[in-house]
Amino acid sequence: MAKKLWGGRFKKKTDKDFFEFQKSIQYDHKLAKYDIAHSLIHVLALGSTGVLKPKEKAKLVKSIQKIQDEIAAGKFKYDKDSEDIHTDIQNKVEKKIGKLALKLHTLRSRNDQIVFDEKFYCYEESTKIEGLLEKFMESIMFLKNRYRELSIVGYTHTQGAQKIYFKDYLGAFYCMFERDKKRLSSFLKNLEIHIGAGALLRNIKKENYGKAIKEFLKGANYPIKPSENTVDDVSDRDFIIEFLSILSIMQMHLSRLSEDFILYSTKEFGFFELPEEFCTGSSLMPHKKNPDFLELVRGYTGRIYGNLFSILTTMKGLPLTYNRDMQLDKEPLFSSVETVKDEIAIMSRFIKGVRLNKDIIKESLKDKNLYSVDRAKDLVKQGMSFRQAHDEIGRELRKK
Amino acid sequence: MAKKLWGGRFKKKTDKDFFEFQKSIQYDHKLAKYDIAHSLIHVLALGSTGVLKPKEKAKLVKSIQKIQDEIAAGKFKYDKDSEDIHTDIQNKVEKKIGKLALKLHTLRSRNDQIVFDEKFYCYEESTKIEGLLEKFMESIMFLKNRYRELSIVGYTHTQGAQKIYFKDYLGAFYCMFERDKKRLSSFLKNLEIHIGAGALLRNIKKENYGKAIKEFLKGANYPIKPSENTVDDVSDRDFIIEFLSILSIMQMHLSRLSEDFILYSTKEFGFFELPEEFCTGSSLMPHKKNPDFLELVRGYTGRIYGNLFSILTTMKGLPLTYNRDMQLDKEPLFSSVETVKDEIAIMSRFIKGVRLNKDIIKESLKDKNLYSVDRAKDLVKQGMSFRQAHDEIGRELRKK
Amino acid sequence: MAKKLWGGRFKKKTDKDFFEFQKSIQYDHKLAKYDIAHSLIHVLALGSTGVLKPKEKAKLVKSIQKIQDEIAAGKFKYDKDSEDIHTDIQNKVEKKIGKLALKLHTLRSRNDQIVFDEKFYCYEESTKIEGLLEKFMESIMFLKNRYRELSIVGYTHTQGAQKIYFKDYLGAFYCMFERDKKRLSSFLKNLEIHIGAGALLRNIKKENYGKAIKEFLKGANYPIKPSENTVDDVSDRDFIIEFLSILSIMQMHLSRLSEDFILYSTKEFGFFELPEEFCTGSSLMPHKKNPDFLELVRGYTGRIYGNLFSILTTMKGLPLTYNRDMQLDKEPLFSSVETVKDEIAIMSRFIKGVRLNKDIIKESLKDKNLYSVDRAKDLVKQGMSFRQAHDEIGRELRKK
Amino acid sequence: MAKKLWGGRFKKKTDKDFFEFQKSIQYDHKLAKYDIAHSLIHVLALGSTGVLKPKEKAKLVKSIQKIQDEIAAGKFKYDKDSEDIHTDIQNKVEKKIGKLALKLHTLRSRNDQIVFDEKFYCYEESTKIEGLLEKFMESIMFLKNRYRELSIVGYTHTQGAQKIYFKDYLGAFYCMFERDKKRLSSFLKNLEIHIGAGALLRNIKKENYGKAIKEFLKGANYPIKPSENTVDDVSDRDFIIEFLSILSIMQMHLSRLSEDFILYSTKEFGFFELPEEFCTGSSLMPHKKNPDFLELVRGYTGRIYGNLFSILTTMKGLPLTYNRDMQLDKEPLFSSVETVKDEIAIMSRFIKGVRLNKDIIKESLKDKNLYSVDRAKDLVKQGMSFRQAHDEIGRELRKK
Repeated sequence: MAKKLWGGRFKKKTDKDFFEFQKSIQYDHKLAKYDIAHSLIHVLALGSTGVLKPKEKAKLVKSIQKIQDEIAAGKFKYDKDSEDIHTDIQNKVEKKIGKLALKLHTLRSRNDQIVFDEKFYCYEESTKIEGLLEKFMESIMFLKNRYRELSIVGYTHTQGAQKIYFKDYLGAFYCMFERDKKRLSSFLKNLEIHIGAGALLRNIKKENYGKAIKEFLKGANYPIKPSENTVDDVSDRDFIIEFLSILSIMQMHLSRLSEDFILYSTKEFGFFELPEEFCTGSSLMPHKKNPDFLELVRGYTGRIYGNLFSILTTMKGLPLTYNRDMQLDKEPLFSSVETVKDEIAIMSRFIKGVRLNKDIIKESLKDKNLYSVDRAKDLVKQGMSFRQAHDEIGRELRKK
Repeated sequence: MAKKLWGGRFKKKTDKDFFEFQKSIQYDHKLAKYDIAHSLIHVLALGSTGVLKPKEKAKLVKSIQKIQDEIAAGKFKYDKDSEDIHTDIQNKVEKKIGKLALKLHTLRSRNDQIVFDEKFYCYEESTKIEGLLEKFMESIMFLKNRYRELSIVGYTHTQGAQKIYFKDYLGAFYCMFERDKKRLSSFLKNLEIHIGAGALLRNIKKENYGKAIKEFLKGANYPIKPSENTVDDVSDRDFIIEFLSILSIMQMHLSRLSEDFILYSTKEFGFFELPEEFCTGSSLMPHKKNPDFLELVRGYTGRIYGNLFSILTTMKGLPLTYNRDMQLDKEPLFSSVETVKDEIAIMSRFIKGVRLNKDIIKESLKDKNLYSVDRAKDLVKQGMSFRQAHDEIGRELRKK
Repeated sequence: MAKKLWGGRFKKKTDKDFFEFQKSIQYDHKLAKYDIAHSLIHVLALGSTGVLKPKEKAKLVKSIQKIQDEIAAGKFKYDKDSEDIHTDIQNKVEKKIGKLALKLHTLRSRNDQIVFDEKFYCYEESTKIEGLLEKFMESIMFLKNRYRELSIVGYTHTQGAQKIYFKDYLGAFYCMFERDKKRLSSFLKNLEIHIGAGALLRNIKKENYGKAIKEFLKGANYPIKPSENTVDDVSDRDFIIEFLSILSIMQMHLSRLSEDFILYSTKEFGFFELPEEFCTGSSLMPHKKNPDFLELVRGYTGRIYGNLFSILTTMKGLPLTYNRDMQLDKEPLFSSVETVKDEIAIMSRFIKGVRLNKDIIKESLKDKNLYSVDRAKDLVKQGMSFRQAHDEIGRELRKK
Repeated sequence: MAKKLWGGRFKKKTDKDFFEFQKSIQYDHKLAKYDIAHSLIHVLALGSTGVLKPKEKAKLVKSIQKIQDEIAAGKFKYDKDSEDIHTDIQNKVEKKIGKLALKLHTLRSRNDQIVFDEKFYCYEESTKIEGLLEKFMESIMFLKNRYRELSIVGYTHTQGAQKIYFKDYLGAFYCMFERDKKRLSSFLKNLEIHIGAGALLRNIKKENYGKAIKEFLKGANYPIKPSENTVDDVSDRDFIIEFLSILSIMQMHLSRLSEDFILYSTKEFGFFELPEEFCTGSSLMPHKKNPDFLELVRGYTGRIYGNLFSILTTMKGLPLTYNRDMQLDKEPLFSSVETVKDEIAIMSRFIKGVRLNKDIIKESLKDKNLYSVDRAKDLVKQGMSFRQAHDEIGRELRKK
């Protein structure tokens, strides 16, 4: 148990098992980078209020920036005995500069830090996912273009319906991911990263934070703002739920693409040849080439939906403002973000390796049923009502 | 079993129990108004392609408009033996004008109709919910203003934390619902109501639908557009999931408000007096006045989340394009929309009736612990580091 | 608004919209039969305590039994202006016998009635589902036997794996539903229908209820018992969640059967011919015969899972004992029970109509890959290690 | 990338990112102990069929048992570059005894291994949870007994209802966890750990496995059996869903207990004093003692429900038999099992530390409303009907 940020009023020592149960450092260390940003802005704000003298401010900033550099260089090692990332960074600063570090947490609350950190994380990660989506959409376009003249069987109810262009078929997925991208953009547009809410009450003036943010950003474009309603800020986890909802819809699209590609690469359909380097074999049956990547993507739908449901459940009926339940928002968030990023990144390369079996496709298009609407059109041109034409063609088929 | 829109090719009669199992008229009749709109645009499009002669078009339009008038006047009665609302309207037109009605469904698919109807429904209903939200937010503002000078205990972890303004406390809810409204706006801004996708393939040119839409809208502002990617259009249910996600977050907010108000109206907290006309009693204990409205709102979170997960589950892994599974999107959609509308409408009036017990609140603010941060601030001013001040105050409390 | 079971202490009239919002008669009327049972036992218990004189008891019993007869004969009509089924029955008794009816609800609480009613409902409905499952399993056996000699391709990863017997393939589903049946049996075995918990406190002695139950049952076998821990009884909804969990697993099985049958009845696989009377056509494409029944069953998985999560969410974090949130357990319960019953009943007849295309199946079994394990076995017999044999066969395939 | 159990037929090397994406060793190493059991039984079966000579068998058994010993001693280190635990163990055996190891996987499939491993894991873990539940129930009993004479306010709708015994209140939780235990018992009773299903088809006779199991068990009591329907065995994940359902209900109980205890330990209720060693403080407010343990338990409901939903979603609509999607069942399973175990273990000690504030409780029992039913009883004794008595008392309250 590393040094904690609280404890003065407690007569008894924290139970060890409980301490292990409640600590979050094992996952919230992923927020180190953002927690550093909070610390920097906070120190700048303390400086502008006069709580910190210029020299103290400078020394604190410097020590925090050292940690920042370690993180950027991938050299940061969190202390697994710390309660959380906030405590860990505080302790590390203390190690570097001694007693002055005890001023770092002046009038600051972890309630404010964590929501700042998480919003910043969501901001950066949704931006990254936007970028990955773009590449993925380019891959779809690539495959679309490779077979731009090709027609295939279009299905409804997994039954052959009409002949359609492959580019329209694949284009449907393009449209889906385009909508996902739009949803991410709306999300990003509305996301504000607030600072200065205290535990639930402002301790330092908005103006001081305003100045500090400006100094921190140096013209950079992050939507960091001083807290408006502090009660709302520490209570709010909407941004996580909205983000996970967007990822859930995206995942649903991925599951449908996977389902179709699994189907089209069966021996029985035979339309697609999947890239071997993304398939696996069987430890028993030497002949097997299984579409494992697609199956795993389809299967991960459980995880992505489950994570959304997890955080929705946790937030249900929580009294204002902050409650410790809310700590449990991080694992589902990280899990969905990381899974979706992996999926799209690999899918982008996977999809470029898909080959279409033109001969089999050509054969499949010979099915006369695919053209029953054209037959009906002809009868309509000859003056029959569509309803009658439909019936007539149906009756012919019945006789067979 | 009323007359169906298909069946020519079938040798055997549809099984009765199966027919009952698969029909949707018992809920999709709620889309009648929107299905009429589809029929009108479709007839106009058929007219512009020449499939319908001007007189035929006029006659069909007139008969459809009659049904439209019945719906508007609340006189429309759906035939519960029909398969679905599309079939029912077709049969009703046939009843009115005979054989010509057999041309109504020319080159049209229910796959296109249903997604058009549902998008139109979502468009109108989310607009209504926006309006209800506005009123609800006004009510919050009303209560906020009534007690604008009042301070109350602010809580974290359901434990008294610091003294805060009531207006900031209630304002937090205002902020939440404002975000919900923003999400609805983004949703509405991106929603396009497409027409002309056929079963999965365009049968009538975009230009013809374009003209027909213009003629139908007569300057009205609905975002109706000809289908771009027809494969995507009949496969897509994103708009329902996105809508239900937005409602789920809103519902989460409602559940938190309810939880707090239930708590604050217990005898033990005693801060709030709930309006009697929204409470109920006990059949056994004569003294009871229970916060049933708030409990039901909190409880409905199950339904609203459940509906979201229902449609997410149904859509998981569906092959393109339309599958009958997708018929089951309507009941969760309607259920969430209607529940949320009822909740907000009643909550708007409920909240205006809430009274605060100023004496109890005043008493509760006497707790010295609520001012421990101020104590720490003082010690900081005297030169102590915040960490030390925190410890010192903690140790004092420990001794008691 | 019909006469209510409470209201004395209220100065203001119940708000009309709120009354509509909170009433449950529109769905809990389905529990009429069980609520009658509660009333009968309660009256018998009141009789044995002396609160009711023998004549009063007899008169009350008679009037309640009249309602019971109406229910049995399908003639019971609930009053949609009543708050709930308990109130409705009370009012109906009052209509029949006047003032004496005012003694019916003596020392009784709706908290006790509703949990009794729901447990009784679950008891009867799970028994019915057991019966339907049995028939369904017989149907599976029927189809299994029809093709007992037939071999088919066995799949892993939707890729042909090895030749297996059709009876083993279909037998796998038999095993699944057999486990479902076992789970139902365990559920039924542990289910006790308690009576006499009051609002949360016993008002009438256990002995009196004990006698009354005996008198009511007349040797019948229902597991009705006097309440043991009254606090637990009115707080408990485990039985609903457990029931819905069992139905969710069963539904998952149904979804897998549906998926496979949809796949095997595609033109591309071609193994199965589905019974026409359970399929539907397209309003646009005259040639279509769609596996709608199977798609709907697969799609209903959303509903069944959603209902389970609805009630799980509603129950999360509820303080003891009864809260009005719990009223919302009924709609998900009824919805899952009715859906599953319909599905299995129709599936039992559906499955008997499935025909296998022996020629296509025979052809599919010619694929040499299906026998790669046999090849490996041979090599093992010749002394090669299995790992080497696997590699060798794999390498041969690679060269092709 | 360590040596794999397949690959002969593949021309291209597995993509590195995909390999990372698809491997499971990072979590399925937790099944090492059970996978060893499978290997032992399998080797014994191979011995009894003659595929392995007695010496080969003995040598293989010995090398596997060495690994078993390492696991038991906590010294087992899995190779993170292996695909999965099955591969890892195979490779480790090879390292120990060279070429003979290539016979270990003869006629065995990972499809059979994984379901065996998971069932064995569920068997052992549910047994452990049963034990923890027992201890937890003893703790409840302990607290119940400490205050066995005490009465408290009983609540419905979070509003004071009637005076009840504390032992009945706490006993309600005892009843809940007793039901959970019963559900675990039913689960365990029906659980069979099958072996010998191959990929989906039996490769070695039931008799050989039967003998091997006997030899392995040496009289121990594990319900290990040869596979009956091999198709079902490799497709089945019911046992995980059932287990997670049981844990979800248990978690719901824990969430309700937490909610109540949080409430009763607020300053406003004041009934309970929570054990300090299981509480935490605030980094800002020195006075805070927060019920973090209870909040985390309440919050974990999201995770436990989410895990259940995750696996339900993943299994929806999967074609028979094994699909790679099913690999994703392990993380939700492990996560729920470990979380619940931690919760109950700590809760058992937590609950023993809870103290009741008798003075505050005594004061709270002075509220006359708590005795309104007794008043009504009196009036009934005087000949009034209960309905009238209820009204009369209500009217009196109204006047105040």
